[in-house]
Amino acid sequence: MRFSTSSIPDIHFGPGSVGEVAGLAKAFGGVARAVLVLDGFLASSGLAEGLTADLAAVGIRARIFAQFSGEPKLSHLRAAVAAAEGCQLVIGIGGGSALDIAKITACCAASGKDPLHYALAANPLPEKPLKKILVPTTAGTGSETSATTIFTGELGKKLWIWGLQTKADQVILDPQLTLTLPPPLTAWCGMDAFIHAFEASTNRNAHAGAALYAHQAMRLILEGLVCAVQEPVNLPAREKLLLGSCYAGIAIDNCGTAIAHNISHALAALAPIHHGLATALAFEATLPWLVEADTMNLKAAAAACGLAEPRDLPAFVSSLMDRCGIERALPPAFAGFTAADLAAEMKAPENQPMRRATIREVVDTDIDRFAEAVMALRRTP
Amino acid sequence: MRFSTSSIPDIHFGPGSVGEVAGLAKAFGGVARAVLVLDGFLASSGLAEGLTADLAAVGIRARIFAQFSGEPKLSHLRAAVAAAEGCQLVIGIGGGSALDIAKITACCAASGKDPLHYALAANPLPEKPLKKILVPTTAGTGSETSATTIFTGELGKKLWIWGLQTKADQVILDPQLTLTLPPPLTAWCGMDAFIHAFEASTNRNAHAGAALYAHQAMRLILEGLVCAVQEPVNLPAREKLLLGSCYAGIAIDNCGTAIAHNISHALAALAPIHHGLATALAFEATLPWLVEADTMNLKAAAAACGLAEPRDLPAFVSSLMDRCGIERALPPAFAGFTAADLAAEMKAPENQPMRRATIREVVDTDIDRFAEAVMALRRTP
Repeated sequence: MRFSTSSIPDIHFGPGSVGEVAGLAKAFGGVARAVLVLDGFLASSGLAEGLTADLAAVGIRARIFAQFSGEPKLSHLRAAVAAAEGCQLVIGIGGGSALDIAKITACCAASGKDPLHYALAANPLPEKPLKKILVPTTAGTGSETSATTIFTGELGKKLWIWGLQTKADQVILDPQLTLTLPPPLTAWCGMDAFIHAFEASTNRNAHAGAALYAHQAMRLILEGLVCAVQEPVNLPAREKLLLGSCYAGIAIDNCGTAIAHNISHALAALAPIHHGLATALAFEATLPWLVEADTMNLKAAAAACGLAEPRDLPAFVSSLMDRCGIERALPPAFAGFTAADLAAEMKAPENQPMRRATIREVVDTDIDRFAEAVMALRRTP
Repeated sequence: MRFSTSSIPDIHFGPGSVGEVAGLAKAFGGVARAVLVLDGFLASSGLAEGLTADLAAVGIRARIFAQFSGEPKLSHLRAAVAAAEGCQLVIGIGGGSALDIAKITACCAASGKDPLHYALAANPLPEKPLKKILVPTTAGTGSETSATTIFTGELGKKLWIWGLQTKADQVILDPQLTLTLPPPLTAWCGMDAFIHAFEASTNRNAHAGAALYAHQAMRLILEGLVCAVQEPVNLPAREKLLLGSCYAGIAIDNCGTAIAHNISHALAALAPIHHGLATALAFEATLPWLVEADTMNLKAAAAACGLAEPRDLPAFVSSLMDRCGIERALPPAFAGFTAADLAAEMKAPENQPMRRATIREVVDTDIDRFAEAVMALRRTP
């Protein structure tokens, strides 16, 4: 047995725990100004005002940054870094985009460098980034516990910034913040988290150190997901989903993903699609092929799902997606693309790590077949 | 559900991973000198020379500190802090004593203050302690993942220093280093780790966040312990023990211990006894009483041991101790003490947190009864 597990931040979990932000910010010491990177709808809710008042009460002046939507773009990052000038702390509250913007901002604001300076590991990150408190409000990306960020560069290309310096100093998991996530988003984000755990625990990088988190993530997500979709205000179900997606984030932080995420990123390069939906569709399309590998890790993943054998997984996952009401369809914007377009993106250099990490060898004919299967889910416009 | 889990350091696990020390030390950046806090027998083995050469090869001058034996005393700490002068890194390799000395040294060498300055939380620890790499060579204390240290003050009183600043920056778990641990020590240390996990997951502070680690610790220790005692060079068994004790350390870092550790610390205040043996004897003496609480957490702990009910635990644990060859006897030095002496120590202020954390209320008549049961294990001199 041989593995490494990367550091895991302090985690506060509980309904209402977002109220602990100010106290934890003060506990860092030396924080006079903070920038709050918030999803737009959160900024206009009472949450931003409440937090700003809480922070003011402990002597911290907070600025709100909410000028972004969709997945992070370079322009959002640059604006966030400008907003963070003079700050010692970045607080990210929202979905994966808000958290990724917060993580990159903490690095770039500390060094004064542009995000492109660090993109694709071109240069080492600054040794002392600003402090970071991350508060996810969707249960999906697990960005709060990973060292990875993704954004779109000037030419529409997906870029990433990776490094320990992007990691949170403090994670706050407040399941109450997830109660308003609508059922389709709950389903897509939950499937994304489940697939993070599944791929991290069954790909070529999988190891026992990360499997502890991945298996618990799968158990928790399976206990909570359908219930949270059907009854959004069910707090115990939301708790399980949120903790599960956090553990799944730890798993991918250590072992990464595989073929479903290769396809998911390739889809996103063609047209806008929710990352969780794209990943779920790609997972369902490739799972029957994947489980033929029948490895010990696939057996362990099946066992974590309460199944006797890996070959039971495809029907189990399809049933799960049915019960979550996930429509097997690509958004209308995909009507103008072909399977060959998707296959070309799946073969693009930036998507090869996920292809190579897959436990079965993914040959070009596999790529073509998967691209056909996924693009068959186009809707006629 | 509500809990906090404290940060967990980067962990490298694997046979031979101690060879990664120099590379990881260099990766910190800015390290020119390091002090190696090593158990005496390790200092005289080839390990110290090899590590010193490895470190020299990456431009780090290392000094060896091995002038201690038994549990850490104030004089050891002061000597270690003196040895760390001018160092940027402390590397602790050994049992719990070596690791605790390393943790305290990293704090005191950074501030120039005496260990007593920080004892019993009298003053806050320095914000920037020296970097720490911790390499346990016994599978027991879990000190490599906890924020706690224990040492003996000038008047023979047990003192502790607690704080995030004592935590490792890097943990290296090399099961090969544990192959030479003799069977009795393997058994005592392994039982100590098992009881850490059991108490942390069943006491009043127990929560789901730490239970993940505690339950996995119990499973791993139960898979490895008897085999490692009976066949010391069995590497897979040693791997499970070492990883299990590390996870148990994470569990106590979050939730602490309970009555068995109250008694164990009380015993140590009377006369020298191995901490693991003392804890195992105390655990066996109190478990039938404890499991009457029959809580959900006790049920979950029993399930992690493969048992249907908490009431099955006492016989299971006694059988485990039998198979490990643990003699139910206190060292000869206890002959001069009475049950009343032990009861008085169990009621001492410093042992009350463990008493209060116990899931059942521990009234004075319980203390007296437990003290009688444990002191019945005295040997006639």
